[in-house]
Amino acid sequence: MTTVSSRKDKCETTIRVRYGETDQMGVVYYGNYFTWFEVGRVELCRELGIEYKKMEEEDDSFIVVAEANCRYKRPAKFDDQLTIRTRVVNSQRRTITFAYEIVNSATGEMIATGETVHVICDRNGRPKSLPEKYRKFFPLSPGDGKQ
Amino acid sequence: MTTVSSRKDKCETTIRVRYGETDQMGVVYYGNYFTWFEVGRVELCRELGIEYKKMEEEDDSFIVVAEANCRYKRPAKFDDQLTIRTRVVNSQRRTITFAYEIVNSATGEMIATGETVHVICDRNGRPKSLPEKYRKFFPLSPGDGKQ
Amino acid sequence: MTTVSSRKDKCETTIRVRYGETDQMGVVYYGNYFTWFEVGRVELCRELGIEYKKMEEEDDSFIVVAEANCRYKRPAKFDDQLTIRTRVVNSQRRTITFAYEIVNSATGEMIATGETVHVICDRNGRPKSLPEKYRKFFPLSPGDGKQ
Amino acid sequence: MTTVSSRKDKCETTIRVRYGETDQMGVVYYGNYFTWFEVGRVELCRELGIEYKKMEEEDDSFIVVAEANCRYKRPAKFDDQLTIRTRVVNSQRRTITFAYEIVNSATGEMIATGETVHVICDRNGRPKSLPEKYRKFFPLSPGDGKQ
Repeated sequence: MTTVSSRKDKCETTIRVRYGETDQMGVVYYGNYFTWFEVGRVELCRELGIEYKKMEEEDDSFIVVAEANCRYKRPAKFDDQLTIRTRVVNSQRRTITFAYEIVNSATGEMIATGETVHVICDRNGRPKSLPEKYRKFFPLSPGDGKQ
Repeated sequence: MTTVSSRKDKCETTIRVRYGETDQMGVVYYGNYFTWFEVGRVELCRELGIEYKKMEEEDDSFIVVAEANCRYKRPAKFDDQLTIRTRVVNSQRRTITFAYEIVNSATGEMIATGETVHVICDRNGRPKSLPEKYRKFFPLSPGDGKQ
Repeated sequence: MTTVSSRKDKCETTIRVRYGETDQMGVVYYGNYFTWFEVGRVELCRELGIEYKKMEEEDDSFIVVAEANCRYKRPAKFDDQLTIRTRVVNSQRRTITFAYEIVNSATGEMIATGETVHVICDRNGRPKSLPEKYRKFFPLSPGDGKQ
Repeated sequence: MTTVSSRKDKCETTIRVRYGETDQMGVVYYGNYFTWFEVGRVELCRELGIEYKKMEEEDDSFIVVAEANCRYKRPAKFDDQLTIRTRVVNSQRRTITFAYEIVNSATGEMIATGETVHVICDRNGRPKSLPEKYRKFFPLSPGDGKQ
């Protein structure tokens, strides 16, 4: 059973490294990559047609992070333009996994890769199924039954 | 008309500069001082006997910032221990002004000074008077009538 | 004595509010505005033809902040698109003052205004005159002699 | 071949959640946990007798992060006091792996766990062996030969 889809399920967005994102090593502080992952994630949602703001307000559905990781390949520096490539790599009833690649827009060099695993929760932090109206954007990945 | 008070209306709290708070100039990024001001402000509230968390949740009163400024005297560096001295310098029906001094705990050198002006608001951002139960902590400053 | 100039000395740049820039009040944390001021400042330098990165590396000239202030007019929220308008309001031998307006790009509403005063310093934090090659970008404001 | 050691190779440090560390979900923004890991790491180094500041300045040795991950168990909230437990879980010639547990200091509940893998590098980002003088603090873990 495979999911064949012509839907857009990845996106690219660019950011420029801010001075405040560097540290005294002269490169970007490692925690800031997770902020950029979030920028990519929000942008992918937008391109899918989801306004995440409304998902929280109108559908009481929050995409809560359960796990996050990053592998740092090359340092990013102040004023570098970076491309964040985001895609959905797994989607289950209650969980969504995003993967990220951050590359230097000018040179194409890989800066970092990472993943984040999210659980759909209500306002009070209780896990819930992704509302049906959003399911089309996140079709179930093969093997859902096992999770 | 003067306010004579033996109440505690200032406090000192110490923090240690985090690596992520520095930037590539090798010193603390200028925006982070405002986070430290907030640390001092929260600590002063706590010492006054106010739990700011509850003020938001139970009394629908948010201390919303209207103005903030900082003057940078000497750079703070990674791992420096800093003392934040916070005091209330003006308190009106709807506004409170805090002043801050940040000094190097080891040398006593002045690192920065600043002020923040706050307006009491409800959950929806509408200005309101400070609830009566908190007034004892923030007695009206002379000259309230004019504001 | 007035400075007549057709030079570009202001710029507009847009940013989108990141999730991590909000706080539990549901609006942008007040310290983050200073990061946006920096984004505007760097962009203005770029549009003037200055690459700030090289100014640090090749000319041993750092634009060190001495004062910063912000007045908060309306809250900015997650995913809002904001326009940062930056201009030079005063330029002396050793100091440059920038002013900022942050408006909601969609509604035009004023979100915040602010200023930052900077001193040109070398790598070791000693004040120095702005290198001659950069002076054309920051022509002396009237009244320099007095400062 | 096992490493028997009575050395201190773990430490506990406490922090209090800052307002600016929360996001509009009302809990701590996920990227900030990595800042706290760093606080734990620096504190462990200090307790081992290493001043990380000097390691950079005097020994041209930077502990550069290569990988980082975090698993989020329960949300941390504004003003919570948290205990960061840090320990070295693997130490090789050129790499050190730290593990972290973050618990609510009051309730003991596990908030998050994580690891960071680091490579020793010189000022220019080239990997190097950990200087001999620091080896006593990070005795080789079994199985070094294979890496």
